[in-house]
Amino acid sequence: MEKMKLKMLYSDFKPDIDIIEKELEKALYSTSNVVNDASLHLLHAGGKRIRPLFVLMSAKFGQYNIERMKYAAVPLELIHMGSLVHDDVIDHSDMRRGRPTVRSQWNNRVAMLTGNFIFGRAIQYVSHIENPKAHQILARTMVEICNGEIIQIEDKYRLNQNLKDYFRRIKRKTAILIESSCEVGAVVANVDPVNTKRLKRFGYYVGMSYQIVDDVLDFISTDKQLGKPAGSDLLQGNITLPILLMKDHPKITRFIERASKGLVTEEERKEMLKIVRSSDAIEKALKISDQYLAKAMKEVEQLPENPVKKKLKEVALFIGKRKF
Amino acid sequence: MEKMKLKMLYSDFKPDIDIIEKELEKALYSTSNVVNDASLHLLHAGGKRIRPLFVLMSAKFGQYNIERMKYAAVPLELIHMGSLVHDDVIDHSDMRRGRPTVRSQWNNRVAMLTGNFIFGRAIQYVSHIENPKAHQILARTMVEICNGEIIQIEDKYRLNQNLKDYFRRIKRKTAILIESSCEVGAVVANVDPVNTKRLKRFGYYVGMSYQIVDDVLDFISTDKQLGKPAGSDLLQGNITLPILLMKDHPKITRFIERASKGLVTEEERKEMLKIVRSSDAIEKALKISDQYLAKAMKEVEQLPENPVKKKLKEVALFIGKRKF
Repeated sequence: MEKMKLKMLYSDFKPDIDIIEKELEKALYSTSNVVNDASLHLLHAGGKRIRPLFVLMSAKFGQYNIERMKYAAVPLELIHMGSLVHDDVIDHSDMRRGRPTVRSQWNNRVAMLTGNFIFGRAIQYVSHIENPKAHQILARTMVEICNGEIIQIEDKYRLNQNLKDYFRRIKRKTAILIESSCEVGAVVANVDPVNTKRLKRFGYYVGMSYQIVDDVLDFISTDKQLGKPAGSDLLQGNITLPILLMKDHPKITRFIERASKGLVTEEERKEMLKIVRSSDAIEKALKISDQYLAKAMKEVEQLPENPVKKKLKEVALFIGKRKF
Repeated sequence: MEKMKLKMLYSDFKPDIDIIEKELEKALYSTSNVVNDASLHLLHAGGKRIRPLFVLMSAKFGQYNIERMKYAAVPLELIHMGSLVHDDVIDHSDMRRGRPTVRSQWNNRVAMLTGNFIFGRAIQYVSHIENPKAHQILARTMVEICNGEIIQIEDKYRLNQNLKDYFRRIKRKTAILIESSCEVGAVVANVDPVNTKRLKRFGYYVGMSYQIVDDVLDFISTDKQLGKPAGSDLLQGNITLPILLMKDHPKITRFIERASKGLVTEEERKEMLKIVRSSDAIEKALKISDQYLAKAMKEVEQLPENPVKKKLKEVALFIGKRKF
């Protein structure tokens, strides 16, 4: 059902997303068998290609040419893929979306190098674009994502953190990549500066909503839907919005302390899930996500008339309301 | 003595290299304490800043302006620094030039992220330059270095490799970065295409000589000069030129097999060093390095008259003849 919805959302862009998909395959080709296998493993794991979609949608407000836009859309998806591979090293993750990660199928070294290779390819792609602004956005994005990963490590299992810490983290971890997708799409298609900024802000708000929903789903979805045990975030020490909203719940505090020592049992995980699910934290978190979504919609309203405006809203809504 | 020679080589460029050094410090500033400490650790470990020097020397054949050139010189040194940090992860190295590595002082995760941060900064710096050619060179360099690292892993302890494998490896591991330093320097200073190519080739030949000498020094220097045990390359499975030139020496073959299982004793290491040092492989390897050096000099000859030509030769000679 959700997948059908998503497919409908893409409909108009399907032929162009197919071009991006082929280009991604080309981009990930490496002379090294190991890296090639690892990259294809990633490619075939699929993904919604939501970042390329944001690039293309934003470009519709300017001079849209897929043969030019692909040099902007491909690097955004590559940066996303590269950081997933590195994230799995950082989080010691063995599974992602029901498939073994590169680090578990090969090892950390291969994962590090595959990530580096993918980042390098991203930069190579964007170097086809003459506008230095595009490079600047991409470069800043890469630095910020990296900063986000560092902060995430520093904040792990840290009990004395607040909402501000969380928002700062997800901004850098997720929102910036969607923000940059919209901005780069607009910049490369020569959208005027005012509307470029609107699209950029739209991307930022959608990105914040996206990550909040992701963090909520980690608690309320089934293990099967997630492709990994529910509650994995907290088990790994990532203290997300629902947890921050039920602040200082003594059982949760204790759970985090035990998780930091790797002592959590299966029963404890289930008990934690029960506590979070039955609290009002989920509802509160989704409300905050909705506020971001509303801000995103407001930005769309102010954009010039264009058939793609409807699509922007639909995609934002899909992201903010998705069930897995 | 060597250090004095090096200092003299830099003399004319000293004020500009100082500007690069300050810029590096700025570039490595991170809001994360851990990354900041790790980066400063790298910065203070020093280094010859030979890549920025190549950028600046090459730029002297065009429109030289340090305020512009720094955006080319800094990223080249950053890419070098970033790959050292990642290399130490790949090689599990605990010491580099007599100092603990980032991965040993912190851990592999911090080293991976610090490397990523430094690469991101490199791209951010070069994005100040409008010429897309500069970006293309940098992007290609990053991909190729990454390929080189992958090949180096794939070739580890592999006995059935030949000189071609070795040259392919060091080209990507070392030569490309010096080649690109010269090329980017020329491109950013608007040197004409013919002389840009000459400078690029010069950099490539010098780079090849540089790595061959490095590989020789790993066998003939003292532990103290190296800041790590002599023969470390072979211990870690990196089969370099001297070893390939004494092909199929039964004791060396056996050493490699034992090294791959982590079984080598201190006596065996010393015996291996004795065998390599007393063979003619060192001399032969240095002769190959000299051939590259001669090719580099030939390229310099063909460059237009310019006071910096003498310096290019001196630096190449210093690199090809250095004792540690």
